[in-house]
Amino acid sequence: MTSYHPKAFAGLTWHGAVAGFRAGNDTPSAYLERCLGTIAAKEEELRAFVVYDPDFARQHAEESTARWAAGQPLSPIDGMPIGIKDLVETRDFPTQMGCAAYAGNFPRRDSAMIQALKQAGAIILGKTVTTELGQSEPGPTKNPWDRRRTPGGSSSGSAAAVAAGMVPAAIGTQVGGSIIRPAAFCGNVALKPTQGGIHRGERQGSSQSTAGVHANSYEDMWQVAIEIAKRAGGDPGMLGLVGPDTPPLPARPERLGVLETEAWSMLRPAEREVFEALLERIRALGIPVLRKEDHPALAALERIAAEGKAVTAVIVGFENRWALLNLEANHPGGLSARAIARLRASEALTAEDYRAALATREEMRAAMARVAPFVDALIAPAAPGIAPLWDPDDTQNPRPTGDIAANAATSALGVPCVTLPVMAVEGMPFGAQVIGQAHQDARTCAIAHWLHRQL
Amino acid sequence: MTSYHPKAFAGLTWHGAVAGFRAGNDTPSAYLERCLGTIAAKEEELRAFVVYDPDFARQHAEESTARWAAGQPLSPIDGMPIGIKDLVETRDFPTQMGCAAYAGNFPRRDSAMIQALKQAGAIILGKTVTTELGQSEPGPTKNPWDRRRTPGGSSSGSAAAVAAGMVPAAIGTQVGGSIIRPAAFCGNVALKPTQGGIHRGERQGSSQSTAGVHANSYEDMWQVAIEIAKRAGGDPGMLGLVGPDTPPLPARPERLGVLETEAWSMLRPAEREVFEALLERIRALGIPVLRKEDHPALAALERIAAEGKAVTAVIVGFENRWALLNLEANHPGGLSARAIARLRASEALTAEDYRAALATREEMRAAMARVAPFVDALIAPAAPGIAPLWDPDDTQNPRPTGDIAANAATSALGVPCVTLPVMAVEGMPFGAQVIGQAHQDARTCAIAHWLHRQL
Repeated sequence: MTSYHPKAFAGLTWHGAVAGFRAGNDTPSAYLERCLGTIAAKEEELRAFVVYDPDFARQHAEESTARWAAGQPLSPIDGMPIGIKDLVETRDFPTQMGCAAYAGNFPRRDSAMIQALKQAGAIILGKTVTTELGQSEPGPTKNPWDRRRTPGGSSSGSAAAVAAGMVPAAIGTQVGGSIIRPAAFCGNVALKPTQGGIHRGERQGSSQSTAGVHANSYEDMWQVAIEIAKRAGGDPGMLGLVGPDTPPLPARPERLGVLETEAWSMLRPAEREVFEALLERIRALGIPVLRKEDHPALAALERIAAEGKAVTAVIVGFENRWALLNLEANHPGGLSARAIARLRASEALTAEDYRAALATREEMRAAMARVAPFVDALIAPAAPGIAPLWDPDDTQNPRPTGDIAANAATSALGVPCVTLPVMAVEGMPFGAQVIGQAHQDARTCAIAHWLHRQL
Repeated sequence: MTSYHPKAFAGLTWHGAVAGFRAGNDTPSAYLERCLGTIAAKEEELRAFVVYDPDFARQHAEESTARWAAGQPLSPIDGMPIGIKDLVETRDFPTQMGCAAYAGNFPRRDSAMIQALKQAGAIILGKTVTTELGQSEPGPTKNPWDRRRTPGGSSSGSAAAVAAGMVPAAIGTQVGGSIIRPAAFCGNVALKPTQGGIHRGERQGSSQSTAGVHANSYEDMWQVAIEIAKRAGGDPGMLGLVGPDTPPLPARPERLGVLETEAWSMLRPAEREVFEALLERIRALGIPVLRKEDHPALAALERIAAEGKAVTAVIVGFENRWALLNLEANHPGGLSARAIARLRASEALTAEDYRAALATREEMRAAMARVAPFVDALIAPAAPGIAPLWDPDDTQNPRPTGDIAANAATSALGVPCVTLPVMAVEGMPFGAQVIGQAHQDARTCAIAHWLHRQL
């Protein structure tokens, strides 16, 4: 357990190793062994993985090593060991979703994104811990920077594994804040793409679920995302992630706006100060940073973004109800008390409630589009503070992996979000996020990357 | 085998029986027994059902009978026996999708629409035959009007069961033409709602799949659809079917347009003559019927609608590829030669091909919206002719259940389509369809109903 310093932290990356593969002084097999060494050293304490298979990975790393040696890698991520959140179906590992009702579930299906990763030569190292069904019941994963704190959820294991250097990248999914919040809590970079940007697989129960990537560099983050999207596309009917085949170059924004979100009132004074100081540093780079007081379009967006949690609760509650009712009927005792409570609450929702929430979500998206002429991107806290202390035995805590207040609105907006790990409070990562317009994923990554370099 | 005469045909309906349930001189149990009698008499020859369970149905019919007797039915369709296309997951029956790879598949899950039907008191009588995975490999079902002809597909069993009076309504699904074409071939009415109008369940692999209803009356068709939608809503993120709680009253259109579709050139002279005669009868009612020569917006729509089959092939091929690859890997021999051939062809598609097809689909939808000011609805052939003769042993026939030429465009358009069974050719039903604007499902039904009464 070491204190987090954003400038000092240099996480495990892949793109930096590729030159070595080309030159022949490093190999994917050797890279994998370093990852396995880190896992061996840290996994018992961190619990990032549900399951991983070193021998399976070694076999594929050898094949990748041969391809690099022959100068014929399948893609820039050929040989990259990657962790997959256990909500995503994989042919080579069970998919248990952090849920007792899915214990032993092993349908031997690769989601489209897994098929794409394999086609690109990436190595599915194992399944990372998710909260139960991506909801609030936590898994065993600890925060790499303080074992007493949550890593965030629901992509708990993916964020922790990347931050701890076990893998250079991992797949997460987000409905409320499940990619961006754990990345903020663990200090890695992460991309939640435009809604539908990365194909989620056949199980498409929610209109607000997005697959994304955790990594320790913007380069790796983008490369993994685009290798999937160029092969498997986005969700059915969606455009999919749009952007270049290689990581977009860092790009200076002309003007930024602040989106406070519902998280603003939850920040402690120390966190607000650090965030305000960040804005000052950005302004010192000559980049105007508008607040809601500065422009009516920002004020209007902020007002409707305050509906984020309420809208998300109705949409997700209604959409998940049908599958949860089947799970409950088929697996008595297979759902946690927290999941059952959420299901019961969702049963009061009507189709009209759902439509009303969809209409509000459309209004939110229109308000977001209306700020486009005035700011290149928005910047916001990525979570309502640093990772909270967490007592696994406290069953009364409604949000043991943290609150979705900073992420509900941006999830509902369906726009790309990229974390900007440049702040610390009390020796813990305190995340910011850069938020772009729909389908401006590459530009949003480029701006976050530029800010990260400057700050 | 009797010759089809649209005026003479009076199919089994439910709405006409409800007065008897209220008055106490008929009961859902008695109604069910009449259905079971028809099934006993015809099923061996027709093969509309994969499986049905008389005792299960009788038990639920008794409960419904008691509710009607107490004056407390759960809905206007309480007690209605209904057939469910075997692509839709049901808790009480296996879901085998007409596919050897799914033989014995019994996940004991009710899709959202099934949960909704049960909440409304409807009785899930059994699963109706689908072509393999809703594609082209046919099931054993025969056309009720001529056993030598196909009932159409992929909702083969649903259309045949309704037309044969086995059930008053059945659920179908459509990606290319799988609701409207079999309804046209069998002579029943059917609604393919606006894209996403009725919740399809968790398996949402295609952006162009729609669940809909086969029935023998516009009243039953609408009532079943709205009972589902008011409870389960539409697909995730979609508005769902919008309209009144009871069937919309027949409504006279002010002006109609013709959409010839790709089917036009496939019609034989006798079929064209009957369709042209239909248009004349409509004009004789004082309703102008515009052709593509009459208005540039109709001409533009017709031009881009000619992309229907090509666009559908790319979108569906790309979207279904991931699931099919898993099925093929897990079930050697579990897919037909036709399905394997389609899968191999789809592997050549890139994410860019898919995006291009999505863009064309968007253009099609924009062209459709642009005719809204000029016509209340469109009228088109519902299939490229009457049901073709069919030799089950001819493995070379690429489309044994008929061609999607009349339906690919309207499926891609995502707009509501309602059949209008008022034509016959050679003693067989020859279907027309009424096509409305997105979310104008109720108005489209009302227009079709009015035309049906007048014609």
